[in-house]
Amino acid sequence: MSITGTTRVYAILGDPLVTVRSPEHFNGLFAERGIDAVMIPAEVKPADFSAAVNGFKRLRNCHGLILTMPHKQAMCEHVDELRDNGRLCGAVNAVRRMEDGSWIGDMFDGRGYLGALARHQVDPAGKRVHMIGAGGVARAMAMALAAADIESITLRDVDAIRARDLANAIGAAFPAVSAQAVAEDRYDADIIVNATPLGIHPGERLPCDPSRLTPATVVSDVIPKPEITPLIAAARERGCTVTTGRDMFQAQVGLVAYFFGWTDRP
Amino acid sequence: MSITGTTRVYAILGDPLVTVRSPEHFNGLFAERGIDAVMIPAEVKPADFSAAVNGFKRLRNCHGLILTMPHKQAMCEHVDELRDNGRLCGAVNAVRRMEDGSWIGDMFDGRGYLGALARHQVDPAGKRVHMIGAGGVARAMAMALAAADIESITLRDVDAIRARDLANAIGAAFPAVSAQAVAEDRYDADIIVNATPLGIHPGERLPCDPSRLTPATVVSDVIPKPEITPLIAAARERGCTVTTGRDMFQAQVGLVAYFFGWTDRP
Repeated sequence: MSITGTTRVYAILGDPLVTVRSPEHFNGLFAERGIDAVMIPAEVKPADFSAAVNGFKRLRNCHGLILTMPHKQAMCEHVDELRDNGRLCGAVNAVRRMEDGSWIGDMFDGRGYLGALARHQVDPAGKRVHMIGAGGVARAMAMALAAADIESITLRDVDAIRARDLANAIGAAFPAVSAQAVAEDRYDADIIVNATPLGIHPGERLPCDPSRLTPATVVSDVIPKPEITPLIAAARERGCTVTTGRDMFQAQVGLVAYFFGWTDRP
Repeated sequence: MSITGTTRVYAILGDPLVTVRSPEHFNGLFAERGIDAVMIPAEVKPADFSAAVNGFKRLRNCHGLILTMPHKQAMCEHVDELRDNGRLCGAVNAVRRMEDGSWIGDMFDGRGYLGALARHQVDPAGKRVHMIGAGGVARAMAMALAAADIESITLRDVDAIRARDLANAIGAAFPAVSAQAVAEDRYDADIIVNATPLGIHPGERLPCDPSRLTPATVVSDVIPKPEITPLIAAARERGCTVTTGRDMFQAQVGLVAYFFGWTDRP
């Protein structure tokens, strides 16, 4: 990779950025495909976010941004158009400068999860999903699942109001999907998803009780590292089909690369 | 070079940037020395400059900026302290974030020229200098020469007022140096410097009359590309010692690397 005066610049904005893998992944893609572009980390705290985005938008050779925690919602104010899942979530994780100078944003966390399911031959259409967590990533995944015609989704979160709000939002956007906040985990679901950070740190309690998982259940986790979380390990032991956070990440980077025009298709 | 979430970011701001060599040069240095940093191009027009700088300053992992045309003067408003030649010039080409969060700026164009002279065993102390051009680069060079104890400097510019203003500024900062705007080139000088862009484009007229150069004169050009400008070629033919814009660039990048703490000394 050789950076010159005419190299396109992309940045990933987040705080902290110590664990992000997008710069390595996408700079590797640029090198492989001979794309004259570079992706840099841009660690910025919430109070400085607007000024930082405004700065990047002024650079003629900056063609897009990737957003990670805690900036996915705040970015919506800075785009001219919210697409698809971005609009449903009120959050975006990729924004692109178009030929006409306008900026469009979309959210790929949820469709990354659909890609992870597809990779394991799981079609979510008609399925009953139980999701643990109702934060930003959960919303993106739930909206993507609803768009993929699941039958129903139950949501449990330590913040019951957040779970109820998300259920209501899903119901409003997808009236055909039954969406409901619940106080207990539903082990009879076809798909059980952990959309919380539980499992990142060794020795942490599991997001649900693995002894109640049955082999017919698909068990998914959003945590990319460690790839094999305690939940995933327990689910595998019980014979469940599993999808990991790394599966999601890999599917998502393909979608993001296509969104930015770096690849012909995901 | 592998860019991760914790890589330090440096940017070169200018408009246009198509010919800049700093990204290649300094990214090469980072790779050689195992420095976890990247330098990106940031093409920004004057109207967008303040917002762009403000954005970079908000990035916790942005540790410095390099400035090129037309932003060297405008950058002064954005630093907490102007050092040395930067203060004398009212312009900076490198700014650095210090440990305490403050930003300091300095100008290395002129000291790069002193480095070019040193490389050719030319000591400017006591010398009579004639400079063609009185713009920003000329000011940086003239101030650096004056600080290096030249005897006198004559300045000729198509804009006579600009030449007079620069002569006055040199006289005010360095009372021991005779500084004078002149209408004709002085071929009896010890050092003749072209500090104009004349010579970048093939077939362009020369900045002065090469037939009047004598072998005792040191002839310098600021143009880095082509390295051998028509003036430099003519001066060489006449037996003059010459210093090129590339000599200046090479000396300058050493000084800039030291300023940023990338090397132990220039």
